[in-house]
Amino acid sequence: MDHFVYHDGRLMCEDVAVENIAAKVGTPLYLYSANTLRSHYRRIAEAFAELNPTICFSVKSCQNLSVCRVLQAEGSGFDVVSGGELFRALQAGGEPEKIVFAGVGKSDAEIMQAMTSRIGYFNVESEAEMENLIRLARQQGQVVRAALRVNPDVDPRTHRYTSTGKKESKFGVDLERARRFFDTYGRTDAVRLCGIHLHIGSPVNSVEPYVAALTRTLELIDQLATAGFRVEMVDIGGGFGAYYDNDQQVPVAAEYARAIIPLLRGRGLQVVLEPGRSISANAGILLTRVQYLKQSGEKQFVIIDAAMNDLIRPALYEAYHHIWPAKVEEHFIPNHRRGLLSHSAAPAEASGAGKCQTDFGVPAEGMILADVVGPVCESGDFLAKGRALPPVQAGDLLAVFTAGAYGFVMSSNYNSRPRAAEVLVDGSMWRVVRRRESYADLIRGEVD
Amino acid sequence: MDHFVYHDGRLMCEDVAVENIAAKVGTPLYLYSANTLRSHYRRIAEAFAELNPTICFSVKSCQNLSVCRVLQAEGSGFDVVSGGELFRALQAGGEPEKIVFAGVGKSDAEIMQAMTSRIGYFNVESEAEMENLIRLARQQGQVVRAALRVNPDVDPRTHRYTSTGKKESKFGVDLERARRFFDTYGRTDAVRLCGIHLHIGSPVNSVEPYVAALTRTLELIDQLATAGFRVEMVDIGGGFGAYYDNDQQVPVAAEYARAIIPLLRGRGLQVVLEPGRSISANAGILLTRVQYLKQSGEKQFVIIDAAMNDLIRPALYEAYHHIWPAKVEEHFIPNHRRGLLSHSAAPAEASGAGKCQTDFGVPAEGMILADVVGPVCESGDFLAKGRALPPVQAGDLLAVFTAGAYGFVMSSNYNSRPRAAEVLVDGSMWRVVRRRESYADLIRGEVD
Repeated sequence: MDHFVYHDGRLMCEDVAVENIAAKVGTPLYLYSANTLRSHYRRIAEAFAELNPTICFSVKSCQNLSVCRVLQAEGSGFDVVSGGELFRALQAGGEPEKIVFAGVGKSDAEIMQAMTSRIGYFNVESEAEMENLIRLARQQGQVVRAALRVNPDVDPRTHRYTSTGKKESKFGVDLERARRFFDTYGRTDAVRLCGIHLHIGSPVNSVEPYVAALTRTLELIDQLATAGFRVEMVDIGGGFGAYYDNDQQVPVAAEYARAIIPLLRGRGLQVVLEPGRSISANAGILLTRVQYLKQSGEKQFVIIDAAMNDLIRPALYEAYHHIWPAKVEEHFIPNHRRGLLSHSAAPAEASGAGKCQTDFGVPAEGMILADVVGPVCESGDFLAKGRALPPVQAGDLLAVFTAGAYGFVMSSNYNSRPRAAEVLVDGSMWRVVRRRESYADLIRGEVD
Repeated sequence: MDHFVYHDGRLMCEDVAVENIAAKVGTPLYLYSANTLRSHYRRIAEAFAELNPTICFSVKSCQNLSVCRVLQAEGSGFDVVSGGELFRALQAGGEPEKIVFAGVGKSDAEIMQAMTSRIGYFNVESEAEMENLIRLARQQGQVVRAALRVNPDVDPRTHRYTSTGKKESKFGVDLERARRFFDTYGRTDAVRLCGIHLHIGSPVNSVEPYVAALTRTLELIDQLATAGFRVEMVDIGGGFGAYYDNDQQVPVAAEYARAIIPLLRGRGLQVVLEPGRSISANAGILLTRVQYLKQSGEKQFVIIDAAMNDLIRPALYEAYHHIWPAKVEEHFIPNHRRGLLSHSAAPAEASGAGKCQTDFGVPAEGMILADVVGPVCESGDFLAKGRALPPVQAGDLLAVFTAGAYGFVMSSNYNSRPRAAEVLVDGSMWRVVRRRESYADLIRGEVD
């Protein structure tokens, strides 16, 4: 459900043809839809409304200040994992009391920065960190709030790099140890240990791991209550899935909520959610132009001007991103991106009688099968392999979908490539929210 | 063979204790040794002296201007793969005629930039690129030189992401197609097709793939001569290995040269080499401090202040980097890093009778077995897994070795982490050659 649909064969972002923006700003280019951000945020807020949750957008998924401001205006707080993200959240107008700070390696400087900013609470990951937090809070003469991150030892069935809630993870502590943790630190004056945090991984494309993790966590909270420790707050983390592939089965917010709400109903817990990808992923695309076509042996290569330095997910996580031309003939428009009714996220079922009923997972007549690769000098530089595409030519504009999360935020200057521009579209308005880097930017900070 | 050795239990870079630099500059920190860069460059230049080669340092491996300047002063040219790298090579004082420009996706703007700069030649990767180059050269009224990149279809036995010379690669053209390429473009006026380029991958840790690739390429050159096309130059690329692990068998420059020189002797070809990793990898380390220790289930975690955003090779390529404390007890000093004789690269065999004869690939008495992980919020954020280490504590400084190549150049701001500082050591002198990024740098270019 997003605001990227085709009208008359041209890909629109809300009310603007993306090719018009690319023509003015150049490529590669990240493009975000403000109304998609808003609708994704609201979908979660509405689904969980009964619990009156604090929703803290996960800044690491998409850190641009203007994106954060759109969500801040919706009432969102922020989940930050570094001093840099805290800086961004505050710059974006985030209310300190709705900022939570997680991460296994918080430095003294970052903890001090967060204390000075009077953030809501710290998600604490280890005894060593707790000791350090107590030391620094006492030194500052300040009382801070903390939630203990627990590992409920649930397999979220996602990529090994983004699975975080298993027992032998660097994150959090296991449930048995959590009880000892409260025995040791549950009555500390400088750090008020009043919450439990869990985050099992991302993306978690089914509700069962959440239910299992939360059930175990609530048992822990009950045991802690018996032992005299009152847990006021439960932060159930993020990791809600996003559609990368139209065939993929991903629960919507309402389904997560339907499974989670009954577990938390009537417990009087302050509930915190940390959605990132489920808000930002499908709110952004990466636009890139075809530079050259090339045949090598049996392989067809479409060489584009975006590369692994712009979007590393395919190389790093073997991630799938749908890629499609920004301008195509009518019969090549995927069903779920048809803008026949309106661009307010017309469901695929309502798209009318298109000539083509498939979403082109396999090549249809007149299509090519190609590797979509960038100009970076290594074979790991690909955005798609063996992908079915309508015929393309040099100069054609391609959209890489679901690129709003873990896209620009992971980009680098590898091969001395300036980082892409970022643009935010809002209805019929759009503006550059981060300038394309220049060659001068590449050497900024280098000293003669 | 590098200038990172232990004296009295303290890791030195040339004549400077690395802990002194870390104390002043902070961590994480990339640290390069100018004399290691020089000695690696000279080792290659001397090994191949008989061929009087043009050595073009591969900027993509380590792009810092000050590193490039050290090599430029040695007489090095530069292998660049983007307009940004060309900009860097020129900023570092590179002589345009010793700059070669490779890459599968050169944009029109980059080609124009290179023509205006009067670089030595273009390494051309496809017919489409050649057509474009001819078009732009004619438009500019300029005659440019080009080498055709060929794929000799040799398996370099390296990581699939950095293997580039196989037949179905995005790089170059196969040998049969190369003949047709010369038939079509070998007599073009605006682009003088006068060389053959090959680059089979990196790192290539044996000489056989080079011999096989070069033998096939020389057959091609002979066939082209018969057909009336004079190839003046052969660019044998880079990819020479570097020691990541002391047990690893990597040929030294002299061994590569011994195998390659006889093939090229007496042919009157201008020879170009493009070493990157073999010069820069062991000329750099990443310094990082232990933030916290943590036990989770059976696993010991050493949480450091460097992360996958600083060095992505372990996550992306499953790469091994030796990691060792910057200050250790005498019996924990690895043999090959003992500074007993002098710090001018004493070989392991000459290191005298140390108490410990192993290089600690497996834990010795008193050692720990740990995952070395960073603060980034994903499980892919590790620099080492199940690694044997001397006991460490919070605050200890660790060195990540062989980080000079594909280290800082691939770093990102993921998790809004400012990028590390870079320092260059030269004898007893050192200076910051790139400042640590600030929070203000993170949002530079973002527009309200």
